[in-house]
Amino acid sequence: MAADSPRVDGFLGGRLRIAQPVAGYRAGADAVMLAAACPAAQGDEVLELGCGAGVALLCLGWRVQGLSLTGLELQQGYAELARRNAEANGIEAEILEGDLTRMPAPLRPRSFDHVIANPPYFSSGTIAPEFGRGTARHEDTPLSLWIDAGLRRLRPGGWFTLIHRAERLGEILAAFGTRAGEITILPVSARIGRDAGRVIVLARKEAKTPARLLFPFVMHEKPSHLTDAEDLTPAARAVLSQGAPLNLRDR
Amino acid sequence: MAADSPRVDGFLGGRLRIAQPVAGYRAGADAVMLAAACPAAQGDEVLELGCGAGVALLCLGWRVQGLSLTGLELQQGYAELARRNAEANGIEAEILEGDLTRMPAPLRPRSFDHVIANPPYFSSGTIAPEFGRGTARHEDTPLSLWIDAGLRRLRPGGWFTLIHRAERLGEILAAFGTRAGEITILPVSARIGRDAGRVIVLARKEAKTPARLLFPFVMHEKPSHLTDAEDLTPAARAVLSQGAPLNLRDR
Repeated sequence: MAADSPRVDGFLGGRLRIAQPVAGYRAGADAVMLAAACPAAQGDEVLELGCGAGVALLCLGWRVQGLSLTGLELQQGYAELARRNAEANGIEAEILEGDLTRMPAPLRPRSFDHVIANPPYFSSGTIAPEFGRGTARHEDTPLSLWIDAGLRRLRPGGWFTLIHRAERLGEILAAFGTRAGEITILPVSARIGRDAGRVIVLARKEAKTPARLLFPFVMHEKPSHLTDAEDLTPAARAVLSQGAPLNLRDR
Repeated sequence: MAADSPRVDGFLGGRLRIAQPVAGYRAGADAVMLAAACPAAQGDEVLELGCGAGVALLCLGWRVQGLSLTGLELQQGYAELARRNAEANGIEAEILEGDLTRMPAPLRPRSFDHVIANPPYFSSGTIAPEFGRGTARHEDTPLSLWIDAGLRRLRPGGWFTLIHRAERLGEILAAFGTRAGEITILPVSARIGRDAGRVIVLARKEAKTPARLLFPFVMHEKPSHLTDAEDLTPAARAVLSQGAPLNLRDR
């Protein structure tokens, strides 16, 4: 870590300050959107699979008081950062090191009200040698195993919230299969008229209610990128800078 | 048919006149949208599975000159209507009676550049005794078998265009599985901000290109249904009343 000391980034308009590696994988808007989409309420137990430096988990803990937060992270460096970030922001979170495909013993008997995950997006390319970069960016564990591991840790009726690239929607829905229902898909588009870049998928374990495909959430105002200035839509600004929820079930 | 004589409906702003049963299943905007989404070009061979009275096939034949059009229809009454409708509109189309799960012998050796389908939407409820109503509205054949039958009739690189309820997107993508790629999903929303009611899915047999989730196509102008007057968006009017294509691949 000497060659790649963490840098502190502000999230939720500076309300959270999160140390992340400079050259390794660094969470951004997707982690914040994931936290905003999780319908957790006071008293709920939440597990994040692959929590990295803890951005999503801590954004959620900031927005909803009285949650029990648990993060599972494969890489020791990130797990340590997540613990430090939780402490530095005054949010209680238990961070466990381990592989979601071989669930650590302390997690096996547990079940949660919510599982959240932002699995790695890239399944090919050169593995970079920097701090955590390869594992966190690249997809060593198939997406279906993330979903399988999360479903196993949910109690019946519990909610799985996932953000991923829109092109993977078919795989995501196939992995949920008949083990979850009440599936709500929120496409996220950079601008009006553009393809969805991301999808946020909310699924309820063992539910049977039909799926909904929501109207897209649009991140930027202008029809094309006219300037380098930030041009977030009011709704995107509320989520990213003020920690507002996405409320998928009420949309 | 004495108790339920066909009525003639205008499509594409009256450019097509299609006889359909009054009380049975009658095709509407979905069939026109399906035809608009099919990327067929002059000289292509097109098969519609479950062509009913021929609305989609004839809308496509009206828009694109020089297609070879084939329709497969389970019910004799609809197949006869489709033949009469083709003739009455001066569009050449071969209509075969048969079950897509037991493909008629004349179709088995054939392969097509395009398959289009608008499978029945409702999988439960009372089967009405009227002309064709039960079979055409109700889902006696699972959606996955429609997709399987269509893929078998496509040549490699051929295109499958399908319209269905948005809540069935997961099943549709699962049925295409790895046998098709370059999947393009166009959600269709009644109004801005509303859930997609329908999805149009375009898939290319044996392609490997990643899926795209397009920005929704919006049918009506107003944010809510303020009057009974038609308030189609210009884009919807172009498709429904003027026979414009949807051009999914160029969106």
